[in-house]
Amino acid sequence: MSDVREVSPEQQTVEQTLVDTVVASFDACEDPRLKEVMGSLTRHLHAFIRDVRLTEDEWSAAIAFLTAAGHITDDVRQEFILLSDTLGASMQTININNQAYADATEATVFGPFFVEDSPAIEPGGDMAFGAPGEPCWVTGTVTSTDGEPLVGAKIEVWEADEDGLYDVQRDAGARAARAHLFTDAEGGYRFWGLTPTPYPIPDDGPVGKMLAAVGRSPLRASHLHFMVTHEGCRTLVTHIFPEGDPIGWKDTVFGVKESLIKKFERQAAGTPTPDGRVVDGTWSEVRFDIVLAPSGV
Amino acid sequence: MSDVREVSPEQQTVEQTLVDTVVASFDACEDPRLKEVMGSLTRHLHAFIRDVRLTEDEWSAAIAFLTAAGHITDDVRQEFILLSDTLGASMQTININNQAYADATEATVFGPFFVEDSPAIEPGGDMAFGAPGEPCWVTGTVTSTDGEPLVGAKIEVWEADEDGLYDVQRDAGARAARAHLFTDAEGGYRFWGLTPTPYPIPDDGPVGKMLAAVGRSPLRASHLHFMVTHEGCRTLVTHIFPEGDPIGWKDTVFGVKESLIKKFERQAAGTPTPDGRVVDGTWSEVRFDIVLAPSGV
Repeated sequence: MSDVREVSPEQQTVEQTLVDTVVASFDACEDPRLKEVMGSLTRHLHAFIRDVRLTEDEWSAAIAFLTAAGHITDDVRQEFILLSDTLGASMQTININNQAYADATEATVFGPFFVEDSPAIEPGGDMAFGAPGEPCWVTGTVTSTDGEPLVGAKIEVWEADEDGLYDVQRDAGARAARAHLFTDAEGGYRFWGLTPTPYPIPDDGPVGKMLAAVGRSPLRASHLHFMVTHEGCRTLVTHIFPEGDPIGWKDTVFGVKESLIKKFERQAAGTPTPDGRVVDGTWSEVRFDIVLAPSGV
Repeated sequence: MSDVREVSPEQQTVEQTLVDTVVASFDACEDPRLKEVMGSLTRHLHAFIRDVRLTEDEWSAAIAFLTAAGHITDDVRQEFILLSDTLGASMQTININNQAYADATEATVFGPFFVEDSPAIEPGGDMAFGAPGEPCWVTGTVTSTDGEPLVGAKIEVWEADEDGLYDVQRDAGARAARAHLFTDAEGGYRFWGLTPTPYPIPDDGPVGKMLAAVGRSPLRASHLHFMVTHEGCRTLVTHIFPEGDPIGWKDTVFGVKESLIKKFERQAAGTPTPDGRVVDGTWSEVRFDIVLAPSGV
């Protein structure tokens, strides 16, 4: 790597003076937090440019990359979130804002496929709504870090189908493999979903080209999304990941955490289901006990 | 400012492990330069997020900013270049790639308004082509750092008119206040242009909103653009800035350098011009002697 220390003292002064001048340009900012963020952004951006001794052609390539990312982004495709995800910036922001607290369940990336108006299901209901995939019986509890069951906690669940597509990728108005339910009087929950499978992030744009150029796969580890909310608790946005997944730790958005890897027990065709549902073929079963931190931690 | 040192050792480990994992994801990249750039970008991006303890709302605001910048960018409006310019990133890249060499003329930002097909003018010709503004007689020489006159050096010149607009902002196909010419047998050049005046960068988009939020002006210091090329020499992209300009060092893209500030001598109405041109009103005169570094330095 090039090293700023190899640059002449005169040249270092020229470069550092510019950094200081740009940081000082934010001195009149009346919002102290915005001033802090812009100053830090400036220092780190310039440190990157100086460290790699960025060429003018590379600068032009960066402008062209951002322009292409902007032009492919629309209401259902978000290339800047993909960029943040694939550089680990999304996961780092999650880490910072959801620090470990007692035995609270760990958070991971939100992803771009949540929608506000998921259908409601009753306890034991099927969130697949016809989406293709192997049925999966999901059960667990929601408790506080004091061990108290949380009654009426809202659980949003969503996932890709076995073709690797979310409902909204097939049709913006479709609602399938997506639902919300509430914990019962003992803080328990249960529903039918789909056994998660790996799928690529949308890779026909500039982020996909970047991943190909650096020799990285666009595949996400298999996962099932959860968002769990309860009054007085920190909202939990997380996934569970099947043990033994072929992608696993190579997840292209760095979302996998050891504590979120769960055993999805595959059941042979014909095995009776817990609720008497007749399933045509294999199915799986997983338990996920969720612990919410108090809000404000 | 928040400080990483206030964060618990366990949390610092979580955050640093993620940085290391993302950097390692580029290990398979077969292009060593791309691997270096992506690794450095990752380290500095994460250092920024960790230093300011970026909130999830701020992350969302950054995604929304980039999306808006992408959507306003088209063939004639380039919001990402404006962003780079106003954060000093463009000027820093220029600094790194055009280091001081002997008495070679200093470089500054290129800007988004150069076009390839400027009209040719003869020595002493008028590059205004009807653009409104006070006439300005510009003369000088082009020499090497050895002091040799450079014959036939190509000089591209372009500038905003007195309304603060470049030709292409009025009409993409227009060509005015823009031309190219060549140095004569003694390395000299002369032409009529316009006395430069300050103007705002396009500030009706997200970059303009950012400047307003931090209390910065969108105005550029008055300037006249030059690009000078000659075989065997490093191409020079620069401006000259009138001494006493009201914006001057507050230039919103940080392009001003002491050595590029020149005295534009204002002449009273009726003062005879050097070439006998009859000017209706005041005019100005400036001398700019240009020294090109050898290529490859």
